[in-house]
Amino acid sequence: MAIDLRDLERLIAQKDFKGVRAELSDLQDADIAAFMEELKREHVVMVFRSLPKDRAAEIFSYLSSDMQQYIVEAITDQEISHIINDLFLDDAADFLEEMPANVVKRVLRNASPEVREQINHFLKYPPYSAGSIMTAEFVDLRKKMTVAEAFKRIRRTALDKETVYTCYVTDENRHLEGVVTVRELFLADEDAVIGDIMERNVIFARTTDDQEAVAALFSHYDFMSLPVVDEENRLVGIVTLDDVVQVIHQEATEDFQKMAAMVPSEKPYLKTSVFSLAKNRVIWLMILMLSASVTGSILGKYEAAFVTLPVLVTFLPMLTDTGGNTGSQSSTLVIRGMALNELSPKDVGRIIRKELAVSALVGLALSTANFLRILLFHSGSVTMAFAVSLALYATVIVAATIGSMLPLAARALKADPAIMAAPVVTTLVDATALLIYFKIVDLLLL
Amino acid sequence: MAIDLRDLERLIAQKDFKGVRAELSDLQDADIAAFMEELKREHVVMVFRSLPKDRAAEIFSYLSSDMQQYIVEAITDQEISHIINDLFLDDAADFLEEMPANVVKRVLRNASPEVREQINHFLKYPPYSAGSIMTAEFVDLRKKMTVAEAFKRIRRTALDKETVYTCYVTDENRHLEGVVTVRELFLADEDAVIGDIMERNVIFARTTDDQEAVAALFSHYDFMSLPVVDEENRLVGIVTLDDVVQVIHQEATEDFQKMAAMVPSEKPYLKTSVFSLAKNRVIWLMILMLSASVTGSILGKYEAAFVTLPVLVTFLPMLTDTGGNTGSQSSTLVIRGMALNELSPKDVGRIIRKELAVSALVGLALSTANFLRILLFHSGSVTMAFAVSLALYATVIVAATIGSMLPLAARALKADPAIMAAPVVTTLVDATALLIYFKIVDLLLL
Repeated sequence: MAIDLRDLERLIAQKDFKGVRAELSDLQDADIAAFMEELKREHVVMVFRSLPKDRAAEIFSYLSSDMQQYIVEAITDQEISHIINDLFLDDAADFLEEMPANVVKRVLRNASPEVREQINHFLKYPPYSAGSIMTAEFVDLRKKMTVAEAFKRIRRTALDKETVYTCYVTDENRHLEGVVTVRELFLADEDAVIGDIMERNVIFARTTDDQEAVAALFSHYDFMSLPVVDEENRLVGIVTLDDVVQVIHQEATEDFQKMAAMVPSEKPYLKTSVFSLAKNRVIWLMILMLSASVTGSILGKYEAAFVTLPVLVTFLPMLTDTGGNTGSQSSTLVIRGMALNELSPKDVGRIIRKELAVSALVGLALSTANFLRILLFHSGSVTMAFAVSLALYATVIVAATIGSMLPLAARALKADPAIMAAPVVTTLVDATALLIYFKIVDLLLL
Repeated sequence: MAIDLRDLERLIAQKDFKGVRAELSDLQDADIAAFMEELKREHVVMVFRSLPKDRAAEIFSYLSSDMQQYIVEAITDQEISHIINDLFLDDAADFLEEMPANVVKRVLRNASPEVREQINHFLKYPPYSAGSIMTAEFVDLRKKMTVAEAFKRIRRTALDKETVYTCYVTDENRHLEGVVTVRELFLADEDAVIGDIMERNVIFARTTDDQEAVAALFSHYDFMSLPVVDEENRLVGIVTLDDVVQVIHQEATEDFQKMAAMVPSEKPYLKTSVFSLAKNRVIWLMILMLSASVTGSILGKYEAAFVTLPVLVTFLPMLTDTGGNTGSQSSTLVIRGMALNELSPKDVGRIIRKELAVSALVGLALSTANFLRILLFHSGSVTMAFAVSLALYATVIVAATIGSMLPLAARALKADPAIMAAPVVTTLVDATALLIYFKIVDLLLL
C-alpha cells in the first residue's frame, strides 16, 4: 500500500478532508476498510465521512462488527439510512446479525420500507442455512422474452444486482423454470426466445439447507451461483461463489477447532474475549482430564510391576505418544476425507484394510528402530527390548484402527466426525496401550 | 439422481447406445463423471463414446486421473485430439500433470499446434504457483474501443473463454492497463470509450506467486477473477474463483495433514497406495518417537521418587495429556489465525498476554477439579492433592505458552507454522510437564 498511516493521521489532525479523500481514492474498498481498523478511534468517523458516497456502503461491509457498531452509534440517522439502503442485502443481514438489539432497531427504522421488509425476511432464516447466506438480488427473466429483451432487462436492473451473469427464468408465481447465463445470451441470436435456450434441469438449494451442503454442491458442480427456493418452490434468492468461499473457510476453522478439543467459535482470535476463549477450551479439557484418570488407575493396578522393574516407566511416554500420534493421523485422514465427501461410512471395509496394512508397515519400521535403540542405549536385556517393541507394534495397529473407526462411527450415529480427533483418540489409545504393554511385560518379563 | 446404475449396465450389455445417451442427457456433467467412476471398467469407454460430442471434454475434466488415463489409453488418436482441443487450458494442464510421460507425449502429439504450444507453456510453471492454476483464456480489450465494439469482441470470443465477465484492457505489447466488468459495460453508454470507464488501479498476481497468496488476495478483495502477469508485466492469464476454491480445499487439507504429523499428500485417501501412506506417516512418527525417549530418560532420573511413592506414576497420563491438549488448542488457534491472515508474528505480545490470561483461568478450573477428585477418590494426603494440582496448573500455563509461541517462531523463521502443531507441542510439553511435576513433588512430598 502506498499510504502511510501517520500521513493520514496528520491530514486528519489538520482537518484536511480533501487531502484524506485524495489519499484514499486510489485504494481498493477492502484496503480502505483494513486501514480504518488501524486508525485511532476518534478519527474513524471523520474518515468514514470523507469517503466518496458511492463507495461508503461497500467499504462499510468490509469492516469488523466492532467497527461497524462504533460507526453506526456515532453517525446520524440520515447517514445510517444511506448506508443500509446501499448495502447488498446479504451484507446488511450479516451486519445486523452481529449488532445488539437497540442498534438493529435504529438501523431498521432508517431503512427504506422495501429494504426493511427484505432484511426482516432474511433475518428469519436459521444461522448457517442457505437462506442466511443468500442474496435476494438477482436477475429474473421470463420464458417468453427474446434475448434482446433479456439484455434490456439486465441493463435496467444491473446496478442493483450482486451477480448479473446468471439469470433465472421464473413463471408468474415465481417458480423456478430454468437458468441461462449471460455468456449463453451473448452466443444466442437476438431474436431467440429464452424458453428455447435456457437450461431446464436446474440444481437448486432450499432456504433451510445447511450452508455446508450448499458449499458441497458448488464444489461438485463448479458453480458460480446457485438458486435458492422456499418451501413452496418459489425462487427467493441466490448464493454466489464468494459467499461460499467464506463458508469453506468457516467450516474448515470449525473443524480445526473441534479437532483440537475446542468448542468452535467464529470470531477471530484477537477479537474473542479471554473469558469466552477459556469457556470454549475448558469443557473438553475437563472431560479429557477426567478420562485420563482412568488411564492413571490402570497404571495404579500395575504398581507392583514398575516397583520391581522401574525402567518400565521410562518407556511410557514413547509408547503413549507414538500411539496417540498414529491414531491422530488416522482420524485426521478419515475426518478430512469425509469433510471433502471422499469417504463415507460405507467405505468402512476399505478403510480398515488400508489402515491395517499401513500400520503393519509403519509399526514394523518404528518397532525395529525402537528395538535397536533400546539395545544400544539401554542396559536392558534383549527380552526387554523385544517386549517393549512388541507392545509398540501392537499399539500402533490398535491406534490406527481406533483412530480411523471412531470418526466413521460418529458419522454413522449422525454426530460430527471432527470431535473424534486427536485428543479423544489419544485418551482412548493411552489406556489401550498401557493394557497391551503390561500384559506383554507380564508374560515376558515378570 | 434419477438414474439406476443397473439400468444403465443393462442398456450397455444390449449395446443400446441411444438408450444410454438418453439416460445420461438429463444429468449434469459432474454427475455423469461421478457415475462413470462407478461403472465396470469394460463399460467405461463405451459410455464415454456415447456422450454428446460437445460435452465429452467437459465431462472428461471431472474424471479422476486414474480414469482419465484409462480412457486415453483405450481410445483412438483422433478421439484424443477432440478432447484435448476442447478442454479448457487449465483443465488440460491439470490432466497432463498427472499422466505418465508416454501418455503425455501421445496426447500432445494429437493436440493442435496452438493448443500444444499453450499447454507446454503452462506445464513449465512451478507447481502450486499462480501460473499453474491460471487459464490463458480471457477476453482482452483495447483502450480505444467503444462499449459497442467491446460487446462485439466479447460475443465473437465468448465460446472459448472460461470467464467472459471480467475483461482485461491491454496495450499492443500485452501490458495490462485496466479492467472492466461486463456489468459495467451494461451500465455504460454504447459510445463510451473503454479507456474512460475502465478501472486503472488493477490488482494482479505474478505467474510465480504462490497459489496460497493468490487465494488470500481473492478472500481479501472478494474477487471473481484475477489477472496474472509474467516477469515483463505482460498479461498471460487469469485465475478464476472456482480454481481458488480448489486451492483453499487443498491448502486446508495440507494443514490438517501437517498438523497431524504427516507429510501432506494431495491425493484422496482411497487413491493413495498403502506404501505412500506409510511413507508419509512414518517420518514424523519416527522423529517424535525418538524425541519421546528424551521424556523417558527424564522419568528415568526420578526412578527413586516413584519407587518410594508409586502412586505418583498414576498421575502422569492426566498431567501429560492435559498439557498436550492445552498446548494443541493454543497452537491450533495461532496456526489457523495465521492461515487466515488474522494473526502474524508482530501480534506476539497480544497473543502471549491472551494465552497467559486464558490458561490462568482454565488452569484454575482444571486444577480445582483435580484437587477435589484426588481428595475424594484417592487415599492420598491433602499435600499430595495440592502438589499434583499445582503441577497441573503450571503445566497448563507452560503448555499454552509453548503451543502459541512455536507456530509464531516457525513463521518468523520462514518455516510453515502448521508443523508446530499438536504432536510436536505434545512431545515438548510432556518433557516440561515431567520436570515441573518432579520438581514440585521433590519440594513438597519427598
